[in-house]
Amino acid sequence: MRVDAFKLPTDGPADVRGLQALLDDGVVRADRLVCVLGKTEGNGGRNDFTRDLAMRALEDLLAPRLGLPPARVQDRVVFSLSGGTEGLVSPHVVVFARSGTWSKEPGPKRMVVGTAHTRPFTPAEIGRTPQIEETARAVAELASELRLAPADVHLVQMKGAIPKADHEATLAARRAGAPLRNDMVHSRAASALGVALALGEVTRADLSDDVVCDDWSLYSGVASCSAKPGLQRTEILMFGNSDRASGDLVVGHTVLKDILDVDAVRALLAELGLPVAGGQLTPEQRARVVGVFAKSEADPRGSIRGRRHTMLSDDDIDDTRHSRAALAAVLASVVGDPCIYVSTRAEHHGPLGGGPLAIIARAP
Amino acid sequence: MRVDAFKLPTDGPADVRGLQALLDDGVVRADRLVCVLGKTEGNGGRNDFTRDLAMRALEDLLAPRLGLPPARVQDRVVFSLSGGTEGLVSPHVVVFARSGTWSKEPGPKRMVVGTAHTRPFTPAEIGRTPQIEETARAVAELASELRLAPADVHLVQMKGAIPKADHEATLAARRAGAPLRNDMVHSRAASALGVALALGEVTRADLSDDVVCDDWSLYSGVASCSAKPGLQRTEILMFGNSDRASGDLVVGHTVLKDILDVDAVRALLAELGLPVAGGQLTPEQRARVVGVFAKSEADPRGSIRGRRHTMLSDDDIDDTRHSRAALAAVLASVVGDPCIYVSTRAEHHGPLGGGPLAIIARAP
Amino acid sequence: MRVDAFKLPTDGPADVRGLQALLDDGVVRADRLVCVLGKTEGNGGRNDFTRDLAMRALEDLLAPRLGLPPARVQDRVVFSLSGGTEGLVSPHVVVFARSGTWSKEPGPKRMVVGTAHTRPFTPAEIGRTPQIEETARAVAELASELRLAPADVHLVQMKGAIPKADHEATLAARRAGAPLRNDMVHSRAASALGVALALGEVTRADLSDDVVCDDWSLYSGVASCSAKPGLQRTEILMFGNSDRASGDLVVGHTVLKDILDVDAVRALLAELGLPVAGGQLTPEQRARVVGVFAKSEADPRGSIRGRRHTMLSDDDIDDTRHSRAALAAVLASVVGDPCIYVSTRAEHHGPLGGGPLAIIARAP
Amino acid sequence: MRVDAFKLPTDGPADVRGLQALLDDGVVRADRLVCVLGKTEGNGGRNDFTRDLAMRALEDLLAPRLGLPPARVQDRVVFSLSGGTEGLVSPHVVVFARSGTWSKEPGPKRMVVGTAHTRPFTPAEIGRTPQIEETARAVAELASELRLAPADVHLVQMKGAIPKADHEATLAARRAGAPLRNDMVHSRAASALGVALALGEVTRADLSDDVVCDDWSLYSGVASCSAKPGLQRTEILMFGNSDRASGDLVVGHTVLKDILDVDAVRALLAELGLPVAGGQLTPEQRARVVGVFAKSEADPRGSIRGRRHTMLSDDDIDDTRHSRAALAAVLASVVGDPCIYVSTRAEHHGPLGGGPLAIIARAP
Repeated sequence: MRVDAFKLPTDGPADVRGLQALLDDGVVRADRLVCVLGKTEGNGGRNDFTRDLAMRALEDLLAPRLGLPPARVQDRVVFSLSGGTEGLVSPHVVVFARSGTWSKEPGPKRMVVGTAHTRPFTPAEIGRTPQIEETARAVAELASELRLAPADVHLVQMKGAIPKADHEATLAARRAGAPLRNDMVHSRAASALGVALALGEVTRADLSDDVVCDDWSLYSGVASCSAKPGLQRTEILMFGNSDRASGDLVVGHTVLKDILDVDAVRALLAELGLPVAGGQLTPEQRARVVGVFAKSEADPRGSIRGRRHTMLSDDDIDDTRHSRAALAAVLASVVGDPCIYVSTRAEHHGPLGGGPLAIIARAP
Repeated sequence: MRVDAFKLPTDGPADVRGLQALLDDGVVRADRLVCVLGKTEGNGGRNDFTRDLAMRALEDLLAPRLGLPPARVQDRVVFSLSGGTEGLVSPHVVVFARSGTWSKEPGPKRMVVGTAHTRPFTPAEIGRTPQIEETARAVAELASELRLAPADVHLVQMKGAIPKADHEATLAARRAGAPLRNDMVHSRAASALGVALALGEVTRADLSDDVVCDDWSLYSGVASCSAKPGLQRTEILMFGNSDRASGDLVVGHTVLKDILDVDAVRALLAELGLPVAGGQLTPEQRARVVGVFAKSEADPRGSIRGRRHTMLSDDDIDDTRHSRAALAAVLASVVGDPCIYVSTRAEHHGPLGGGPLAIIARAP
Repeated sequence: MRVDAFKLPTDGPADVRGLQALLDDGVVRADRLVCVLGKTEGNGGRNDFTRDLAMRALEDLLAPRLGLPPARVQDRVVFSLSGGTEGLVSPHVVVFARSGTWSKEPGPKRMVVGTAHTRPFTPAEIGRTPQIEETARAVAELASELRLAPADVHLVQMKGAIPKADHEATLAARRAGAPLRNDMVHSRAASALGVALALGEVTRADLSDDVVCDDWSLYSGVASCSAKPGLQRTEILMFGNSDRASGDLVVGHTVLKDILDVDAVRALLAELGLPVAGGQLTPEQRARVVGVFAKSEADPRGSIRGRRHTMLSDDDIDDTRHSRAALAAVLASVVGDPCIYVSTRAEHHGPLGGGPLAIIARAP
Repeated sequence: MRVDAFKLPTDGPADVRGLQALLDDGVVRADRLVCVLGKTEGNGGRNDFTRDLAMRALEDLLAPRLGLPPARVQDRVVFSLSGGTEGLVSPHVVVFARSGTWSKEPGPKRMVVGTAHTRPFTPAEIGRTPQIEETARAVAELASELRLAPADVHLVQMKGAIPKADHEATLAARRAGAPLRNDMVHSRAASALGVALALGEVTRADLSDDVVCDDWSLYSGVASCSAKPGLQRTEILMFGNSDRASGDLVVGHTVLKDILDVDAVRALLAELGLPVAGGQLTPEQRARVVGVFAKSEADPRGSIRGRRHTMLSDDDIDDTRHSRAALAAVLASVVGDPCIYVSTRAEHHGPLGGGPLAIIARAP
């Protein structure tokens, strides 16, 4: 069982020439692709159609190679595209392929990746304990399948369910004093808490419906959750290190305490065998970094290190665009490469104003 | 001759309470104020009225204390306010006051600040050799007044002249094959080259009308020039270190080779007695940093470290906003403080995609 | 009792030269000014500082003429400045002055204007029946003072209270099942319903806490309400026609059923003695229009006349900017003048997607 | 020879269900499609990828039905998609299909549509007389093919050539005193003048290299030109009325003298048999309007009807978005339907601040 990964810059949302070359040259086989993570140059918001364009291009590329109609490609390969390449961020995708079988003997830990999904949710479950528990169950099961102890899981990328409720049910729930939470905020929040529960970052006793979007001391340091209206079940993508895997990739993670937490970034790089001597990785070190994945947002308390920020009161630029620009620049300045994946809205993802960071690198 | 400086966070463009307290408490005397530099939370563009609001508030504060009508305050105190607090940047001003006389004996170098202006320009001179030469003359004269050798000048902040031309003169110049350059781009460019000439960063032989906005290898590493339509003469504000000055401030500068040049930032800090041990100054070190002033812009070649950036093709967010967000985040991540002054449009200010950086700190 | 009004284009938010000339020429006396309504060229959102700049300029102009410190000017003259001159809208203010006494005998109805305020509100009252009832009381009292029957009131411009609640009170209210509504949405909504109640547009029996922001069939056709965090009591400005007033101004209003309701606009103009022959007022007719004031917003149901609009899903431009651009263009196309005042967020102001329109004109 | 047209609202840029239904139901045959014009909900600028997404979806729909690979579909069907549905504009496409043969006998004039292209251009020809003349030649030839006298041509939609020049040629041209004009501004300008020349709106004697982007009194009232970097030859789409055509469509045009020229709109509608009684077409009349196509931009002189506008100094929203919002609202208010196609940048398209308007309707 080995994973190979390729960082591919793109010339636009529909540019799939990098992956096409890998496929045409036989470097990667379509049927071994697990997922494509990447940044596209839209606004990352509701009217960001660059993700649709990128997915359409990937589907058109892969459909004939997988012998599937384009509309079925995403049943086989997970696309996790995040819009918004603010500031110095460079549009790119990272492609992951899996091959081989598990080693019988333990060896040095190497990265594995796998996918799973929860059972379908009802609207009333979203943002509440049932979503948290079922997410935790599915995450734990996937970790077990991938032969990963909780401490070996470093990134759980999820697309959270938001089943549609009919108007009557919505009104009834409100009247009953338990308004539906089937929105993006609560779905992301419960997804993250589900990961936290599965991996022991919080205990079952910490959790209740009331803590969701309320007790921000509870969080996951490895989750990276989005949510999608209309989705019935949550899709899960997990990265971790197993001593029964081979290949040359390793993944690690840390929790940024705020958007300026450059020391956490350096500590994580050092853990991955990439100690920063001055302020930035050397070109040789940098060449070993395959992917940098962070989740964060503008500190909702309106300040950073005691200084007021203006991201939340700007009606010309969304705060998500401001904060991605800032955090990505900080990360890029340490790594030395503008191919950085930062996504935003980070309820229960690390502490307020901070967030999880995962880095995938080639082992030394 | 000593300079004192105060970094004052603001709650909004019209917030002058910080300076008011200093004045009321007798910490600073109004008649000793030299200049106020700061960032306000507008878009930094043509319709950024936050600078006007801030200046109006400063004028209303200082006018009675200086015994002047508000409209005359700027004849005495230079306001250099830059709009745009993108990403993590925190709105703030740095106030500079000057007092005392020159020491008779040399001592450790300490920061001085002074102001000057050029003679009035004609529209035809702007963006051409006459603007460069007269700027150089005024800069050299000011350096001499401040007892600064060229190597001791570290920041020359300028508001460049753009005298208005009548329509006929504009047409005549175009017909004569030498179209007027009385625009912001060329005024900034010639201002910067004037500084470069005065300080020996370029030689007179390097210069001609043709090199302006064409030969980007010619630049200043200490200039920070804006330009203002309607201004007849260029206003100059200079910071440098003199061995005849006292006080506890020092200023230094470096040239960033690109927006990710974190090693240059660290080298400059080290020069100022603030070596960065890990990735960031310690709280004690940080408390000694009074002001961080950078000038840069999105690399016009469309890439950073060989990676495409999208700042120049975004029609929703101006590239100046993207690049300020990115560079300020990089600088803040080293200093550990979001009070960073980055201004944009940087013709002949450092190499393409890079730019000058000056830091003012308390001496160890 | 007569009202005079002056439409004054501005060159920027701080431009008060129009009013200054009126004062200097003795056309208007400062102590007779009642209010200044106008559009400034900001984004109309949280970080729109153009209103502050305009108010500061007006205060500086009027303070010496009123013998007041600038900070007290607004106790005497109401400033109602709305940010956002999208599309063809031209920045301008309309200044109103009042003089003379009431006629003893009835004559043709002419416009009057007056101001009032409610008692201070507690946070728990906002967005609920108490705010509605007290607003209705104050509106009714002001109408009576101005000798206006309900049918003669055509525009009630209000700045609604939003008293600050402490965190404990907020939590307690939420726990008690009656979460505080001291936000802009609910304050505006209850203000509008207060006007509607005072003027008989709704009955007391229609109203309850539950209908606020829920039953959109209840609305006022003459209210134009904003809300301001920190304000303790609601400020009221009323325009109507009285047969005991003199002068040459009249005001009328209508309710737009949607943003395309050009026939309502024409009917209102006809009522004011300005029938539109073709598609637009003639230059002579147009010269008689002093002010056009509308309140509306993007239809929250996402469509206009059965066609989908995209104003609510655009993360680059706020929907308020889109809808102001559209409605102002429609109004300007009938009037033939881009000095149009449209403000947005219109809870219980006319039907969903529509809104109130008031026009002030010189009588024929 | 008859043309059928269908106005199809879309749910998003990739929504082709309307056309798919027409094809599946046999209402339209794929091989008879001539062109698709429409508005997509992007920003209309450089980073508007909604047009790409829409074209990709149309290609995927039509490729199997035309027996072509997707990349070849546009050789057969012209897509003219314009980004930007500001304000009330509703995303939609209008699909045109052609069938039958020319009538032998003259009858009432009915709409025809046809396509052509110029020869390939060299970079030096763009924006100068050669582009104008070759465009005029191709336009005249197409009119003749379509049996249209100049007065019967009402809309010429073009995608103008911008052949890429190498850096050396660019420098050489600049040195020779005739800098290349192979940019969007000059290509659009020369395209429009080419149409004007072909249709007798200007004479050959009026034209020279110097008048391009200089003498704004020269313009076309039927052109609607965009330009595309990399395109070698200009693509032309022409709509006009012929007495040898059948069907029930007619097209007409007018020239708006400014963005508020509602009387011109009404006159055009009347010409098409759709006189406006009040302020807006009746629902029955409106149902006969198939497409409304305008080209305009913010008046570059900064004012409308003597009133300052702020579209050109807004650094948060591009002036093209402002002006599309305004003009589309004016047009929609007369027609009563938010399916309006306004595109911007209008060099030599109507007078400054105005522009051409074409309407396609079913004959009475």
